[in-house]
Amino acid sequence: MPSVTKRKIINDPVYGFITIQHPLIFQIVEHPFYQRLRRINQMAMAHLVYPGAVHTRLHHSLGAYHLMCNAVTELRAKDVEITTAEEIAVKAAILLHDAGHGPFSHALEETLIPSVHHEELSLLIIEKMNRELNGALGLTLSIFKGEYKKHFLHQLISGQLDMDRMDYLMRDSFFTGVSEGVIGYDRILKMLVVHNQELMVEEKGIYSVEKFLVARRQMYWQVYLHKTVLAAEKMLVKIIERAKYLNSINDRNLSAGPAIDFFIQSYDGKMTNQSLEWFCAMDDTDITFAIKTWRHHPDKVLSLLCDGLLNRRLLKCDLRSTAFTSEELATKRQQTAASLKLSTEEAQYFVFTGEASNTTYKIADENIKILFKNGAVTDISHVDNPLIHQTISAPVKKFYICSFN
Amino acid sequence: MPSVTKRKIINDPVYGFITIQHPLIFQIVEHPFYQRLRRINQMAMAHLVYPGAVHTRLHHSLGAYHLMCNAVTELRAKDVEITTAEEIAVKAAILLHDAGHGPFSHALEETLIPSVHHEELSLLIIEKMNRELNGALGLTLSIFKGEYKKHFLHQLISGQLDMDRMDYLMRDSFFTGVSEGVIGYDRILKMLVVHNQELMVEEKGIYSVEKFLVARRQMYWQVYLHKTVLAAEKMLVKIIERAKYLNSINDRNLSAGPAIDFFIQSYDGKMTNQSLEWFCAMDDTDITFAIKTWRHHPDKVLSLLCDGLLNRRLLKCDLRSTAFTSEELATKRQQTAASLKLSTEEAQYFVFTGEASNTTYKIADENIKILFKNGAVTDISHVDNPLIHQTISAPVKKFYICSFN
Amino acid sequence: MPSVTKRKIINDPVYGFITIQHPLIFQIVEHPFYQRLRRINQMAMAHLVYPGAVHTRLHHSLGAYHLMCNAVTELRAKDVEITTAEEIAVKAAILLHDAGHGPFSHALEETLIPSVHHEELSLLIIEKMNRELNGALGLTLSIFKGEYKKHFLHQLISGQLDMDRMDYLMRDSFFTGVSEGVIGYDRILKMLVVHNQELMVEEKGIYSVEKFLVARRQMYWQVYLHKTVLAAEKMLVKIIERAKYLNSINDRNLSAGPAIDFFIQSYDGKMTNQSLEWFCAMDDTDITFAIKTWRHHPDKVLSLLCDGLLNRRLLKCDLRSTAFTSEELATKRQQTAASLKLSTEEAQYFVFTGEASNTTYKIADENIKILFKNGAVTDISHVDNPLIHQTISAPVKKFYICSFN
Amino acid sequence: MPSVTKRKIINDPVYGFITIQHPLIFQIVEHPFYQRLRRINQMAMAHLVYPGAVHTRLHHSLGAYHLMCNAVTELRAKDVEITTAEEIAVKAAILLHDAGHGPFSHALEETLIPSVHHEELSLLIIEKMNRELNGALGLTLSIFKGEYKKHFLHQLISGQLDMDRMDYLMRDSFFTGVSEGVIGYDRILKMLVVHNQELMVEEKGIYSVEKFLVARRQMYWQVYLHKTVLAAEKMLVKIIERAKYLNSINDRNLSAGPAIDFFIQSYDGKMTNQSLEWFCAMDDTDITFAIKTWRHHPDKVLSLLCDGLLNRRLLKCDLRSTAFTSEELATKRQQTAASLKLSTEEAQYFVFTGEASNTTYKIADENIKILFKNGAVTDISHVDNPLIHQTISAPVKKFYICSFN
Repeated sequence: MPSVTKRKIINDPVYGFITIQHPLIFQIVEHPFYQRLRRINQMAMAHLVYPGAVHTRLHHSLGAYHLMCNAVTELRAKDVEITTAEEIAVKAAILLHDAGHGPFSHALEETLIPSVHHEELSLLIIEKMNRELNGALGLTLSIFKGEYKKHFLHQLISGQLDMDRMDYLMRDSFFTGVSEGVIGYDRILKMLVVHNQELMVEEKGIYSVEKFLVARRQMYWQVYLHKTVLAAEKMLVKIIERAKYLNSINDRNLSAGPAIDFFIQSYDGKMTNQSLEWFCAMDDTDITFAIKTWRHHPDKVLSLLCDGLLNRRLLKCDLRSTAFTSEELATKRQQTAASLKLSTEEAQYFVFTGEASNTTYKIADENIKILFKNGAVTDISHVDNPLIHQTISAPVKKFYICSFN
Repeated sequence: MPSVTKRKIINDPVYGFITIQHPLIFQIVEHPFYQRLRRINQMAMAHLVYPGAVHTRLHHSLGAYHLMCNAVTELRAKDVEITTAEEIAVKAAILLHDAGHGPFSHALEETLIPSVHHEELSLLIIEKMNRELNGALGLTLSIFKGEYKKHFLHQLISGQLDMDRMDYLMRDSFFTGVSEGVIGYDRILKMLVVHNQELMVEEKGIYSVEKFLVARRQMYWQVYLHKTVLAAEKMLVKIIERAKYLNSINDRNLSAGPAIDFFIQSYDGKMTNQSLEWFCAMDDTDITFAIKTWRHHPDKVLSLLCDGLLNRRLLKCDLRSTAFTSEELATKRQQTAASLKLSTEEAQYFVFTGEASNTTYKIADENIKILFKNGAVTDISHVDNPLIHQTISAPVKKFYICSFN
Repeated sequence: MPSVTKRKIINDPVYGFITIQHPLIFQIVEHPFYQRLRRINQMAMAHLVYPGAVHTRLHHSLGAYHLMCNAVTELRAKDVEITTAEEIAVKAAILLHDAGHGPFSHALEETLIPSVHHEELSLLIIEKMNRELNGALGLTLSIFKGEYKKHFLHQLISGQLDMDRMDYLMRDSFFTGVSEGVIGYDRILKMLVVHNQELMVEEKGIYSVEKFLVARRQMYWQVYLHKTVLAAEKMLVKIIERAKYLNSINDRNLSAGPAIDFFIQSYDGKMTNQSLEWFCAMDDTDITFAIKTWRHHPDKVLSLLCDGLLNRRLLKCDLRSTAFTSEELATKRQQTAASLKLSTEEAQYFVFTGEASNTTYKIADENIKILFKNGAVTDISHVDNPLIHQTISAPVKKFYICSFN
Repeated sequence: MPSVTKRKIINDPVYGFITIQHPLIFQIVEHPFYQRLRRINQMAMAHLVYPGAVHTRLHHSLGAYHLMCNAVTELRAKDVEITTAEEIAVKAAILLHDAGHGPFSHALEETLIPSVHHEELSLLIIEKMNRELNGALGLTLSIFKGEYKKHFLHQLISGQLDMDRMDYLMRDSFFTGVSEGVIGYDRILKMLVVHNQELMVEEKGIYSVEKFLVARRQMYWQVYLHKTVLAAEKMLVKIIERAKYLNSINDRNLSAGPAIDFFIQSYDGKMTNQSLEWFCAMDDTDITFAIKTWRHHPDKVLSLLCDGLLNRRLLKCDLRSTAFTSEELATKRQQTAASLKLSTEEAQYFVFTGEASNTTYKIADENIKILFKNGAVTDISHVDNPLIHQTISAPVKKFYICSFN
């Protein structure tokens, strides 16, 4: 029999097949911290508008890992030196880049566990896993934190054109069925080059990058900031806020499972070993179970919000380019207070405003550099191309109001 | 402004767009009984092998509804008379055909609520909804039960070539990424005819039907009965069985949410109004939450099974064409009992055998009739076509053994 | 047997199935004037860069016809009145909109038959066919010419968002494999409305229209005006120009089949019945056969160009945003004259400059109107949307130089 | 600037991108013998039924080359030794495997150049190219002829599961839009193994191979042997036969371009250097031009056939499982002779019978071997799997009759 290295292929409707072949990669994928991502929806409440959008963070990480495999192959074919150790480390890093996401990802990020960003949590979790694996993730951590000398490896994980963004655009547009978000990811991968240890794009790739930026912008407005998705995700936020408020006034009926109880009742804002363990035990199931439980809670605000979200009776949401006035807000709150028989304070959970914004391309931030045939390097925002030239880098801000109609 | 009938289009990655236009259809889709299907995974545990397979029963029903819309249009284009009332009724029926699925669909069907088939539950739920909607679902019920004179309408909901099967093959192969399951659904729809109030297929559609039967067969063996999927779903069954056993010996630590508590502790096998209400309040979340809870249960069998399923440390499963002997079983049980420090009785939850079978095409059952140009009608199993001729109708049975390796 | 109207379904890899059902549509499709379009490549020489781009004008017309079928269904579902006669007429018109394309479509349009635009020829051919069909195309002609009262029917054939453009973007991006050109055609179709007999787009469709405009722009620069495609198509032009020149100096070796002979040697610029008949007898085959013949012609310029185009040894082409100076041109011509041993006059066939330009969206021209929910109508270029706002309507001009390297 | 090896990526709608990187591969692709394949339709007359089926032999060869690149990568990942020289040689061989196809490929294979099979011609052409390239194709020839020690390399070019078959199934189903022909090519590639220098398939790949065999069978009956395609291709044969007959009786009006003239009038059945050169100068254009010319030929049989084929007025074709009797044939010939005012001899060109057959899987021939985990090797026809077991290897023969109705 031929000697065959252990190897697993996983069906992926987006890319066909994903191959796993290295022992460390197997260890990561089989770890409970990674398996937890199966129970975290990639797109939070977007499935209430796009019923196919029920894919998981685990699936997204696997996809980004697959793109990383391709990127490494392409770069090596262009004589960019990547050692085997670096290859495995950068693949481990992309697999784990989202390990720190909590229930419903971004939707609850600042509400459930305030003041700890998910990337910080990812770092804590990789460090924890590194200890378990006796330091096997040392180089992974160095790349993840952006400390490693070959800066392009970090940029493949976190940058304007990283594997994370490429996968989430492809995957989210695939599962929602929103064709406007499809990008030419394979062409972009073939156009990547490394120059002075920085990730850049060949001149011939300009249109594909342009397409990428336009697609991202379209996904923001059509999907991620869709007014109904926004309304549902804000309801989720209001539910947690209300539960925390009720806890602060010593409500006795909140119990909804140990993990949620911990973060509602006991968490003091410090991410200790113990709180990190509670975090790693928590996923979407816990929140959904809490919502199902609180649907019958005596507090009318909490039960109404939970029942509405569960049965898709959502708040109404309007978006416009000018801010809503305090008069508009007050009027709507009074109406809602009257119709629901609530106090004005309570009505705040049903009627509120905010800003939704999207900058397609942040120049100040990480930028996309084009490497011309003659060796010149230019930021894409300075390329002679009117579509990108000015407008793509301008931030777009919209104002929303949610209300109970 | 043009007068526009209320109309909603829903993005579907499988078919593009699904259109909803009739008030009754809106009422059904917005009903909590229908929305509950959002929280029931279409493919139970298959996502442990195919990570994309996380689509829901709600999405599947919408897809089958979409195919029904197309089927009605095609049949009318062939001068088959379908009144508007019949059209709406048959669409309502397909939307609700799976309303009776409980948590994890087929995987738990005979375990959690024994002796009540999901189609029976669908019927009870449609009847309940019909009362709420003041009898608007009368014709729907008649078609659903197969009592309506135009028999082909029932066959579109439940038959060898119904919209249910066509959608689940398309959708399951789409979300798993298993290309072997893709069928030419649009071609089959265009080949449907009605003759003597029976649904048939035009002669030109024979190859598409053949492809449909082969695809179904492939999906069974590659996906639905995949040995790892089988192992995971059997673990789910064993978890419920163990919980029921522990309840029978008065275990006091089983509480895991009210709906699960009801069906583990109180349900007496009679589907009363009250038990139906508990049923309608229950979905995958409740089971997953219970598994997360029981992972810490003092009973070693229960906690091991729950922990294994949650973190994807699954039983090993082998399939073969001959039955496993009682000696093989006994040997493996003893090994497992020894290695896990369990009694032989307890080891039965980790080592067991069974049969998995698939008949691609049951002749006895509902059959597929071909209408030839000359007016002759033949069952597809008698068509002069060697691929279908004999083999497709032969049942295929395999034997499995699950064990803790 | 059920009575079934004659009906044909045609497999289309882009849309699935195209259905033909009306006798007049059958008559058109079966007519030699329509069948000729099988032998006219939709994308001229683009296949030299994108090998899949060998689809035909016939296939494109069928695709546009299919979109028209969908558009009619969608508009009727929104209570727009379209009679059966209008339906058939507008479908006939889109089928025949490209009947006037000669060999290699746009590439030779102004060279082989100067001063007669292909739309003019389409009109002549529809009129000719109308006489053969005893006036069955009267309403078709009225819609085609834009004379019919319901102006939106003309706009479906010829306008910023007509079925022609939608199909060619979809089809050309499909066959080239350039994903940047994919549009959400089905979503745009669902967003079409008619207001004051004008075709408009619902507010919700703004992003899909934006995507359409960006896709078109990308296809222009990546495909239609790709520098290698440009070079090949200009070589084709130069071949015809050289043949005409040789004819003007009484060359005796040009004969390459009767149709080409007629247009090179005898055509006087007037589209008489006789010249129209020669036109209808001519397709890509005739030009390709001429090129294969002339590859052995004693004139070095002609034979070099023909041999180069046939064996894909193409001129080199550069694009830039500033014009090429006469010095640059002269220098290159001298080099080429020297290396090929040609006179400077002859070198003009190998070294030349020109402009390539693309205005994604011409405001002055036919525009895209958005119908807001409140009844307001706004041109898309005035919608509050920075991507479209300024840049998309700005013309983009590039200068090219072709040369023999 | 980073040093970058010369590299070209080609858009392919089927696989995304095809990469060309080695100087020898560039030389082959740029050679006129290879470029000629641009003008040979892969599927002859199938586009008369499936309008998208206009892709070329050049495109197919590139696709098969792409699959070969993947196959080499996969096999090397399984520790199969393939040297760089072998890699380039096997890629060159697959690129050139179809170089010997003449106009309209299989449709005219035995008629235009009788008694020389296209594989023989491919060999002659590779040998000719090898001389031009100073022996660079030595190893390629050895692999092509099946003489090389590593037999699996030959099997990748020519065998039951070679890259040729995998590409033509994928590509033909893609361009026709016949979803029944889609195969899981990427999965099959991942399942390939080499054992004793023979190409085999891993046990896990059995279902994908089954799918491959079923798909091939479906493509034969739905596409390649579709009755209308058959009719058109037989008309093509009859046209050449008639032209040859007319030449044999000294007809003076046959001239239709030098290459066709040579093979109709002068070719004596011996493939000399001179006839090979004429062969290499000939493609679909020459035949189509001849048909356009002969449409006006004084011989009624020839002109009727040419006019019919050009304008898609095709013979009627019936398929059935029993042979047509000489009486049936004679009756139809008499009818046709009468209606067309032809002699009975002449009517033979319009009314004729024959056999169409397809054996999905020839056991005797090259077979598909399955390598089991335990090291056992079994032919797929002996695997315990009822679909393949008996029926797939049974030949299917149908009888056709073409007639002028």
